[in-house]
Amino acid sequence: MKLYMPTAVFCEKDCVRLHSDELTKLGTKGMIVTGKHSSRFNGSLNNVEDALKSQNIPYIIYDDVEANPSVETVVKASKIAQTEGVDFFIGIGGGSPMDAAKAISLLAKNPDKDSSVLFKNTTLEYYPIAEVPTTSGTGSEVTPYAILTLHEKHTKQSISHEIYPAVALVDYTYLKTAKRSGFINTCVDTLAHLIEAYLNTNANDYNRIYAREGFRLWGSVKNALVPCMNKNENDTESIELTDEEYETFMHASLVAGMAITHTGTSLPHGLSYPITYELGVPHGKAVGIFLPGFLRNYENLSEVHDVLELLGFSSINSFENYIRTIIGSVEIPIEIWETDKKSVLDNPAKLKNYPFEINAEILSTYR
Amino acid sequence: MKLYMPTAVFCEKDCVRLHSDELTKLGTKGMIVTGKHSSRFNGSLNNVEDALKSQNIPYIIYDDVEANPSVETVVKASKIAQTEGVDFFIGIGGGSPMDAAKAISLLAKNPDKDSSVLFKNTTLEYYPIAEVPTTSGTGSEVTPYAILTLHEKHTKQSISHEIYPAVALVDYTYLKTAKRSGFINTCVDTLAHLIEAYLNTNANDYNRIYAREGFRLWGSVKNALVPCMNKNENDTESIELTDEEYETFMHASLVAGMAITHTGTSLPHGLSYPITYELGVPHGKAVGIFLPGFLRNYENLSEVHDVLELLGFSSINSFENYIRTIIGSVEIPIEIWETDKKSVLDNPAKLKNYPFEINAEILSTYR
Repeated sequence: MKLYMPTAVFCEKDCVRLHSDELTKLGTKGMIVTGKHSSRFNGSLNNVEDALKSQNIPYIIYDDVEANPSVETVVKASKIAQTEGVDFFIGIGGGSPMDAAKAISLLAKNPDKDSSVLFKNTTLEYYPIAEVPTTSGTGSEVTPYAILTLHEKHTKQSISHEIYPAVALVDYTYLKTAKRSGFINTCVDTLAHLIEAYLNTNANDYNRIYAREGFRLWGSVKNALVPCMNKNENDTESIELTDEEYETFMHASLVAGMAITHTGTSLPHGLSYPITYELGVPHGKAVGIFLPGFLRNYENLSEVHDVLELLGFSSINSFENYIRTIIGSVEIPIEIWETDKKSVLDNPAKLKNYPFEINAEILSTYR
Repeated sequence: MKLYMPTAVFCEKDCVRLHSDELTKLGTKGMIVTGKHSSRFNGSLNNVEDALKSQNIPYIIYDDVEANPSVETVVKASKIAQTEGVDFFIGIGGGSPMDAAKAISLLAKNPDKDSSVLFKNTTLEYYPIAEVPTTSGTGSEVTPYAILTLHEKHTKQSISHEIYPAVALVDYTYLKTAKRSGFINTCVDTLAHLIEAYLNTNANDYNRIYAREGFRLWGSVKNALVPCMNKNENDTESIELTDEEYETFMHASLVAGMAITHTGTSLPHGLSYPITYELGVPHGKAVGIFLPGFLRNYENLSEVHDVLELLGFSSINSFENYIRTIIGSVEIPIEIWETDKKSVLDNPAKLKNYPFEINAEILSTYR
């Protein structure tokens, strides 16, 4: 039974400014790793640049990280980092840039290796990484995981290295500019982390401490995600929560990350990757589709009662209705669904986290 | 708001043997830091030596750590470590050897510094440390704290450096040889860590996760510490608990250490040090004396109701009766008590963790 969560987490409003001195401990020249838009829009990029300037730390910006970043992207960025003499990284955004920062750091530190090393079980060093999350979903700021897109395999896959961020600077106010559907999807990703960490062959008394706290937090604000039908809401609108609700979702995302660090994800995440790759369904939504079926597989275990009770649902049906209401439905073409199930059944890393017999027939009930 | 707990914790029966490979990551030559007796008696020293031998790691043993170790002891051991080329340390025992291992590591790594550096606010490196706890009380295996005895000041004091163990190898079966009163005292130390971490100006949502879990665990086994009057029990007898009870107290001690890492201790610990120094009262018992009064100071806060409820007490009075039953009473001579209160009121480090006005009159109600 193991507990290991070495990232120093700072969490408060105005966090990046208040803890800019943490960045001085990481290295002498930084690379900011982010996407094109949201980190400019929510103020996080500006905050990080100000923090670096205030500490007189030189830096460059790589802002070309796409959603579900590819191996090609991290290779490109790592070469720039090497050329520019970068010795630490700051990921800003959701899971995509934060995961990319980890993979870039690994490749940058090992200039004699090519990208195939990402998926090889070897022990390699990496440069220190700070993460600044701007969504409440991935938990990547405290996990050792990095998921990349493999175009040749038509899916996403976790790299083989455990890369722990040195520092997480967490400010819930970045959530305030999120659009409604995006915000909901990331929150559902958090929920999936909690459920897949709690119902997992690797779960233990320690990581369940985090998961239980996460269920309690998430459950306490879950109604804030239910669409208010007398408003004309759509994808392009911001969702309006109270500061306390944003903060609670951010905390839930963090503890979910801590929970999942000790277990890895399970079948819903495994099933989601081809759905995201082939259909472009956002990650949280793609995972959420499979949560009710996953819970049903565990129906007779007391742990499922824990989950539902802590979240505040009376039954799996009521949980399912809630999830369908907030994420809507997804049509999965039959051929994609068949390939998807097969890819999970062929993936020992996901199957070992699941304690029961599993086959295509059982997986079919998840959709 | 900060969360930082970088120690890799392994916790299970036969832990040292199962995770002996963790020691190979720490260095090339180890020093075992322990006391004269208990680590031989409970099997832990033997287990650690076997683990080092199985990994072909050379080591020396420093087994001259006294209860409440002095600055002189850590200086002596650090000089031996330097002469012998030791580059990592393994503390085995209760708080005394585990704390000593941290201080020895710091001094050994800094041969140009004398012992005054222990209590100076400077940033210094230290060699990696593994800790093997054999009591369920101190939590030192996961905290950055090291408390040493200062004979010239007639008290104990925390060193100024935060020294995190790299690894904690935790096996609850070492508890089985503990004597009744010693076991109870260490368990009360755990309880004090939980209470002082929860009711603390530095407490936050994160460290309270650990504290709440600790209260729940401790409360679930608290009746195992109540003397069974139809047995002829005394200090030299072992206490007999079930494996599950021993394991639960060990877990409670660990999460209490995690909780206290984020806050530091408060008034009960501060008041206890001169009592231990002057009267030889064991640490846990000396701290336990002051817990009921400390809780009463917080009486009107909802947090005290949380504490009592999670522990399973109906009131502070019932908590007090329980504590007095398990630790007994201590006569504190008036002149020592007056000096004690004054020393706490003169200690800004302890006072800052306490949110209310405090003076000698209020402290007098603690006894």
